[in-house]
Amino acid sequence: MADRGPSREDAPASFARPYAAGRIPVWLDCDPGHDDAFAIILAAYHPRLHLLGISTVAGNQSVEKVTRNALDVLHFAGVPGVGVVAGQAGPLMRAAAICPEIHGETGLDGPHGGPALPHSRRAPLPGKAPVVMAEAISAFLGEHPDAGPVRLICTGALTNAALLLALYPELKGGLAITLMGGAIGVGNMGPVTEFNIQVDPEAAKMVFEAGVPLQMVPIEVTHTALATPEVLGRLLSSHAGISKFKALVGQLLTFFAATYREVFKFEAAPLHDPCAVALVAAPSIFEVEEMRVDIETISPLSAGQTVCDVWHQTGRPKNCAVARAMDVDAFWDILIAALDRAEAASPLR
Amino acid sequence: MADRGPSREDAPASFARPYAAGRIPVWLDCDPGHDDAFAIILAAYHPRLHLLGISTVAGNQSVEKVTRNALDVLHFAGVPGVGVVAGQAGPLMRAAAICPEIHGETGLDGPHGGPALPHSRRAPLPGKAPVVMAEAISAFLGEHPDAGPVRLICTGALTNAALLLALYPELKGGLAITLMGGAIGVGNMGPVTEFNIQVDPEAAKMVFEAGVPLQMVPIEVTHTALATPEVLGRLLSSHAGISKFKALVGQLLTFFAATYREVFKFEAAPLHDPCAVALVAAPSIFEVEEMRVDIETISPLSAGQTVCDVWHQTGRPKNCAVARAMDVDAFWDILIAALDRAEAASPLR
Amino acid sequence: MADRGPSREDAPASFARPYAAGRIPVWLDCDPGHDDAFAIILAAYHPRLHLLGISTVAGNQSVEKVTRNALDVLHFAGVPGVGVVAGQAGPLMRAAAICPEIHGETGLDGPHGGPALPHSRRAPLPGKAPVVMAEAISAFLGEHPDAGPVRLICTGALTNAALLLALYPELKGGLAITLMGGAIGVGNMGPVTEFNIQVDPEAAKMVFEAGVPLQMVPIEVTHTALATPEVLGRLLSSHAGISKFKALVGQLLTFFAATYREVFKFEAAPLHDPCAVALVAAPSIFEVEEMRVDIETISPLSAGQTVCDVWHQTGRPKNCAVARAMDVDAFWDILIAALDRAEAASPLR
Amino acid sequence: MADRGPSREDAPASFARPYAAGRIPVWLDCDPGHDDAFAIILAAYHPRLHLLGISTVAGNQSVEKVTRNALDVLHFAGVPGVGVVAGQAGPLMRAAAICPEIHGETGLDGPHGGPALPHSRRAPLPGKAPVVMAEAISAFLGEHPDAGPVRLICTGALTNAALLLALYPELKGGLAITLMGGAIGVGNMGPVTEFNIQVDPEAAKMVFEAGVPLQMVPIEVTHTALATPEVLGRLLSSHAGISKFKALVGQLLTFFAATYREVFKFEAAPLHDPCAVALVAAPSIFEVEEMRVDIETISPLSAGQTVCDVWHQTGRPKNCAVARAMDVDAFWDILIAALDRAEAASPLR
Repeated sequence: MADRGPSREDAPASFARPYAAGRIPVWLDCDPGHDDAFAIILAAYHPRLHLLGISTVAGNQSVEKVTRNALDVLHFAGVPGVGVVAGQAGPLMRAAAICPEIHGETGLDGPHGGPALPHSRRAPLPGKAPVVMAEAISAFLGEHPDAGPVRLICTGALTNAALLLALYPELKGGLAITLMGGAIGVGNMGPVTEFNIQVDPEAAKMVFEAGVPLQMVPIEVTHTALATPEVLGRLLSSHAGISKFKALVGQLLTFFAATYREVFKFEAAPLHDPCAVALVAAPSIFEVEEMRVDIETISPLSAGQTVCDVWHQTGRPKNCAVARAMDVDAFWDILIAALDRAEAASPLR
Repeated sequence: MADRGPSREDAPASFARPYAAGRIPVWLDCDPGHDDAFAIILAAYHPRLHLLGISTVAGNQSVEKVTRNALDVLHFAGVPGVGVVAGQAGPLMRAAAICPEIHGETGLDGPHGGPALPHSRRAPLPGKAPVVMAEAISAFLGEHPDAGPVRLICTGALTNAALLLALYPELKGGLAITLMGGAIGVGNMGPVTEFNIQVDPEAAKMVFEAGVPLQMVPIEVTHTALATPEVLGRLLSSHAGISKFKALVGQLLTFFAATYREVFKFEAAPLHDPCAVALVAAPSIFEVEEMRVDIETISPLSAGQTVCDVWHQTGRPKNCAVARAMDVDAFWDILIAALDRAEAASPLR
Repeated sequence: MADRGPSREDAPASFARPYAAGRIPVWLDCDPGHDDAFAIILAAYHPRLHLLGISTVAGNQSVEKVTRNALDVLHFAGVPGVGVVAGQAGPLMRAAAICPEIHGETGLDGPHGGPALPHSRRAPLPGKAPVVMAEAISAFLGEHPDAGPVRLICTGALTNAALLLALYPELKGGLAITLMGGAIGVGNMGPVTEFNIQVDPEAAKMVFEAGVPLQMVPIEVTHTALATPEVLGRLLSSHAGISKFKALVGQLLTFFAATYREVFKFEAAPLHDPCAVALVAAPSIFEVEEMRVDIETISPLSAGQTVCDVWHQTGRPKNCAVARAMDVDAFWDILIAALDRAEAASPLR
Repeated sequence: MADRGPSREDAPASFARPYAAGRIPVWLDCDPGHDDAFAIILAAYHPRLHLLGISTVAGNQSVEKVTRNALDVLHFAGVPGVGVVAGQAGPLMRAAAICPEIHGETGLDGPHGGPALPHSRRAPLPGKAPVVMAEAISAFLGEHPDAGPVRLICTGALTNAALLLALYPELKGGLAITLMGGAIGVGNMGPVTEFNIQVDPEAAKMVFEAGVPLQMVPIEVTHTALATPEVLGRLLSSHAGISKFKALVGQLLTFFAATYREVFKFEAAPLHDPCAVALVAAPSIFEVEEMRVDIETISPLSAGQTVCDVWHQTGRPKNCAVARAMDVDAFWDILIAALDRAEAASPLR
């Protein structure tokens, strides 16, 4: 697939985008992944958010591939000045698991196989993700002491986040975490386990017990963000017919829908990851409930389960605000607005 | 509360009730408990069932109290010739847990405190429940070799059932088990655990892995059997005004509804246990799905969880038919018919 | 191998041997097994013991084979009037494990393959071991109320013992258990696990937490009961040359020594099981120490470990008297005396 | 206690000591701690070792206190040019545990309470230990590509080491780890657990499964390094009577011996930590055996156990060279030689 050639988007990114006071500073930790691509676009283009940077983590695919994908999504969506740093290549204490049956060989396959998006010339920043994250967050909070907390949005396994909190506990006061992951009831990768948490349960446990403000959007909610044909129609419509940008967005969604149909018998694909970004950008469209959430790490049957104390029976202190419902129409409005802005900025429009 | 005095119901019970060919032989293992009381009445009076006997197990209250309650329910409902044997006083490997906050001090409290039903003079049969169960089931199958399998209906912890299967594996070919218990998603005693299974997870594991045909009615289904005011109206109405029998039934339900309102904020009490009897008597009113169900025993967070592989992701062999839905109206029809028959036979009518 | 023909030993056994006041009543629960054979002989012939009966349990071989072996050992050793009842065919919650690499295909192989001992015509008593044990122990204590507690000596997995205690908690006051099993440090079947406990860890946990007086002879002590060539010389010598009885005893030990040499590189075979009998018969030849012993049941690395709190660091209540050392010469004296008595009574002398 | 005043030892340390080819490059990760003090001195003064730097970790005391102690030991022992970086303040997934009952309130108490050594003016280097370790090791290997692997000697909890390996897997080819910790049999902090591993079992599991060459000196070996009165006599003797340096060494050992006597009833204190340094410096004085060692993390009874497969029964690949015995006389010779060199360099001689 042809690209329009070098542009300023291919210049080395840094973490020094100008900050407009009042915006919510966010860092996105992800494993793109089809739905992560929409999370990146929403984080980059929602007018209330200031995207500090992106880190990647093995999950939907290997860390090399998801890092490549993050860079390609940023280029595709015309996002300048947001750096990407590669994170952990696997879980802390377990063998790496990836998910090609959902996201394809590249982690961001199109409907005809191979990568859905054009390859960009952007390169990741050097360094280790938890270290780079800590430095960027510290630097931002140093310059903008009243702008915090920085919202760390995690849409993949929590390996980077766990290491960040373990190495830099002094950052906890300036951080809050919002994650896509977990399930209250039935899981999507095991009987009671959701993929992002199941991949690295120990990291999840470290994050959930770190004492940092925590929000979780479980699959019960993300499964309401179904890209139905009607939604697809809205997402892909454009002022001037279908642009090249929208066509590629459509291909991402088509591929994702097909794998969900095959693997889970879903009639439409749920866009999990942008829901977590939406919870930061537009909390008023969510119902959330504070409760105790513990991460199961020892059972062979359920390691990675988010044991959610919905009825407050354990007496353990509440540690997580769990999204219970989302205004789905409002969510699509937000996401479509971001896609429209991305289309306008895209080198592929 | 006065009783009408000695009657043939107070004669020593035995397990020798005449068997009408075609009926489904059942043994009820229970821990009455308000909803167990309705399970007993349904098991005794449903025209398709032949109730061989009743065993008790610690759970809703101590085994002494629930045994007393089983005897009192049989007397109250005018059931002749069904023996009761006291079973295990606690779980196999854990401390005993009882549930006075739901069922009161007697396990079958009325709305003014104290026992809801009159005390009967019936006494339990001697012997250990698993041994007596095995002997009764063997004897029945010896006499009626084509009438099996005997359906063991468990509406309490599975301690007796586990010991029965451990000691008498040769009975497995002649047995099938239907139990009220477990949860697919959110639990009622812990975040992901239902009371009957949580009380004795190891016993449950032994039963679920015994290789015997198994049906489970989880709380997702039993929570649809809500004794709403409308249902109460139907349950308590009678040809000749409110009888003493129906008045006492009403008191049982009133007490149970009050505790559910307090503890779980339920607007009406769910009659869990008779659902399991109904699944044996009237399977056509249920939707069931075969799946793998594993019992969590090692996690401090979730011991007693029934990990239900709804999406068949584990590849482990299916071992349980899980009820997913019930025709609630039909269920009440069946239960009301049994109550009417019990009313007709009751010494308190 | 020829037998001397029918004799009173082949008459149906019962549990009604006359009791000589002052003797210690014992029940032996075993899985013969070469070293179990010596435990049987010691239990039958030590002058301070009164052997009430024998139950068997799957372990060294299937329960059918070890039951056959128990009967053959009793016949071989000329023991009248001691019944054998077959017990559990496998662990409570795990797949059965047997140990043919140590005890051969029959569980009591001789050095040329096949059974070491002649086949006897004795048959096991009917019934389930835990039930029969309870009845026999109750009957004995009923007749001899001052003779208790009955000492239950377990030289195999604790499956029968766990079921006995679970079903008949009322017997706990009249029982004390002495078992061969467990390890303080390095195990013999896994890195930190001994065979008898590892076979059925959950049963062991039930026994160790039952609140019944408990003694344990771990492999650290039984590994001092090595049947060295010098010991073999003493064991097999006889007043009138080598008798047929002693020759067969020699073959048992030769086979056992060979497998220990192959599997464990031991220079001589340790006679584990009679050590537990010796602790009951001659406690003065042991050093024992009270401590907390907990049974590991959940770890895949160490399920079946006897976690012995040697330094009293846990603060948990002591529940077991652990043998730490044995006067080995005195042990052999006791065993040889029993073998001499058995030789005199044997139909094969 | 008076110090001799500022000296070059108080100059800011760096990691740039000149490397004499042929020496074994080591990094010491420790939690001083009385026995750690001797490990530092041995690592700094053994003629075959080149000490690159020291990191600290919470364990015997808080990370602040053990970092202070490491600096004071370096000053006391006259070690120039070795930097200290503070490491993790607690385990990855558990509450921090410290050990004042053995090492006192400062972590390096003298016999009269308070710190045993004079306070030095040295300060730790800035940065996070795993990051600083990685940079120093990389830099050394970059300059001396044939000098590797760098030997990471861990004498405390493995938290820093686990994070180092998790963040910098590319260093594994240039690293080998030797640790003091673990037990083959009976533990020192729990029935089957040794302190260093028990403090952070998950970190230990990460290290033992990292695929990096690994040596372990368990307490079975370190308990042979007993500072008996005779050994104390040798350690403290000096050419010119008892020096101030030796007097302080004596006070360290006196305090440590006293706590071991009280807590463990040991007649002399075992110098655990320098054994690990000795294994790197003088491997010929040890017997080591390759085996599988797995770290128990899930059992409440034994989390932190090093499950050592002494008999190779698990079939799992060997991952650790376990010290089984040490030439104790040779060990003391080595340690005394290092102390003599330290005495000569000490500002307190």
